[in-house]
Amino acid sequence: MPEVRVEEVQRFMEESLVAGGAPLPEAQAHAALLLHADLVGHFSHGLNRLELYVNDMKNGVCDAKAKPVILKESESTAWVDGCNSLGATTASFCMDIAIRKAKEYGVGWVAAKRCNHFGMAGYWAIKAERHGLIGMAYTNSAPIMVPTRAKNSSNGTNPISMACPAAGGDSLVVDMATTAAAMGKVEVQIKKGEKIPEGWALGPDYKPTTDPQVAFDSSRLMPLGGPEETSGYKGYALSTMVEVFCSGLSGASPTHKVPMWTYTQQDPPNLGQCFVAVDPQRFAPGFGHRVKECLDHYRSMEPIDPSLPVLVPGDKEKQNQESSRLRGTIVYPQGQIDTYMKLAQRIGVKPLQVLD
Amino acid sequence: MPEVRVEEVQRFMEESLVAGGAPLPEAQAHAALLLHADLVGHFSHGLNRLELYVNDMKNGVCDAKAKPVILKESESTAWVDGCNSLGATTASFCMDIAIRKAKEYGVGWVAAKRCNHFGMAGYWAIKAERHGLIGMAYTNSAPIMVPTRAKNSSNGTNPISMACPAAGGDSLVVDMATTAAAMGKVEVQIKKGEKIPEGWALGPDYKPTTDPQVAFDSSRLMPLGGPEETSGYKGYALSTMVEVFCSGLSGASPTHKVPMWTYTQQDPPNLGQCFVAVDPQRFAPGFGHRVKECLDHYRSMEPIDPSLPVLVPGDKEKQNQESSRLRGTIVYPQGQIDTYMKLAQRIGVKPLQVLD
Repeated sequence: MPEVRVEEVQRFMEESLVAGGAPLPEAQAHAALLLHADLVGHFSHGLNRLELYVNDMKNGVCDAKAKPVILKESESTAWVDGCNSLGATTASFCMDIAIRKAKEYGVGWVAAKRCNHFGMAGYWAIKAERHGLIGMAYTNSAPIMVPTRAKNSSNGTNPISMACPAAGGDSLVVDMATTAAAMGKVEVQIKKGEKIPEGWALGPDYKPTTDPQVAFDSSRLMPLGGPEETSGYKGYALSTMVEVFCSGLSGASPTHKVPMWTYTQQDPPNLGQCFVAVDPQRFAPGFGHRVKECLDHYRSMEPIDPSLPVLVPGDKEKQNQESSRLRGTIVYPQGQIDTYMKLAQRIGVKPLQVLD
Repeated sequence: MPEVRVEEVQRFMEESLVAGGAPLPEAQAHAALLLHADLVGHFSHGLNRLELYVNDMKNGVCDAKAKPVILKESESTAWVDGCNSLGATTASFCMDIAIRKAKEYGVGWVAAKRCNHFGMAGYWAIKAERHGLIGMAYTNSAPIMVPTRAKNSSNGTNPISMACPAAGGDSLVVDMATTAAAMGKVEVQIKKGEKIPEGWALGPDYKPTTDPQVAFDSSRLMPLGGPEETSGYKGYALSTMVEVFCSGLSGASPTHKVPMWTYTQQDPPNLGQCFVAVDPQRFAPGFGHRVKECLDHYRSMEPIDPSLPVLVPGDKEKQNQESSRLRGTIVYPQGQIDTYMKLAQRIGVKPLQVLD
């Protein structure tokens, strides 16, 4: 598969976002967000989505020149209007506020309305973790999850993310859709020509399907836990909790009113997002060492299959990131390269330079 | 099955806790917690556990006369030493602090060490909800969840709970173990002589089992999501997140060092617990109406099976509570009544009066 140097991916993303209408600093911040996803191996949220962001700007759905504003503020809280700015612009603005409040008052809790897609939720949680804080980020999204017992979708993949530092430069990074699997994983199975496990999605007959194409077309992902008997209502409950943090607090659209994200979208999605930072130094001394001891305990557990060691949430992503760093390149499917060759031509940007 | 009047259950619980060594106000608060579990239909956390609490006091594991203390405090945070007091004593103390801080500064985040079992996590989240706040409560517990890929248990059922008010007296109540199912549900299947679904538990051969007795003896519950292919690592991730909130912040024992809760336990479990309150009034006006609109949207969705309407997290518990209220009684299995007849004799309390 085609390989592209990391700096070249960053260059192409930045120039494409600038060509779409973003000022350079906003384009750089947003490109860093997308690049991170590809580096850690979550390709669905990286270059894969660049065209959607470019189109959103060209269609006026996203105003990349807009700056978010604080509408209301107290010691530990802030209510923000994202003003339809680029995802990274609002998310960075909000998490910076949460970080500042956590350092000053112990906790910062920020909810924003009129947001656009902010990429991988975990990227924003990690921003707080780098300040020695517990970080959390949530977003609602378009309806793609079927509540337990329902025929149709009303909830988003509504992710939960949480990151915190551990001693010795270690960290815990939780970043998960509250659906059993993200639609990106269904697409991967289509491309591989392999079935999906029962418990990921319902077909148009409202029964679990193992056919990824049927699952994709049906747009009915099951909540984490799958069917009711294996506690799928818990994934649905988590998604509803995220909805309250996002649209409930901020006044953004609830997921069931958010339009699906398409290449021809005309209306701003008015997503709700929520950013939290907590300062562990306000509690018992030795936080980092306790977290480290826990993480290392899990990693040292005897695995069922010796070739599959027990991991800690975030370990796989760190391994991918390290591989990308050592290689200095990112590998993309040919189809994706082709797509972006066309985009480059359409928006007048120098095409991605693929290595020989 | 035997029926007992609600007031009689409360009387018996209170007197048993007092006989165990609790001062009356602490016994009343703890009995109210256990009674709530039975009223909402979570029988595993109600009368079922009374004997464990009584024994903990008699064995010196729990010091029901102790009062929790604040060790460190800032605007939005508090670190508490539970001093091994009764579960409801510490939980109530901590959630009151979180509520006060949320009202004053927007958010209250409280972590406590040296805690005993605090019953249903949701009970404490609801305490904040009754003040118009978003409430959250977490606890770690004894190791009973197998991390994805591991042979043995290291994580607790580590529940996540969250409650918030909605317009018209409505509310959302999320209260869930981060395992696929609680061990109490496995026990129910043993009593019914029915299998458990695949995805709840591993047997001693580290493979999923559908035999509830094997699952019970093996003590290897699977995380929410089940096996790795249906994202069981997400349930494991959530449990680890809860661990950080509980033992990480407070300095309590991490779950993998917590002793199993038995009738002959000798050492205090030193559980970690975490209580959060957030004031929605610090954000966009109309919070209660937005949440209500979401909940009603879900409830109005067309169900796959018309006899099984789509519910909102907490609806089933409210229905059970209303039935109990109308009936004025709680129904227990004969085996449980027999157990408590023996307890009454052992600790010198007037036995439970069962209705004819």
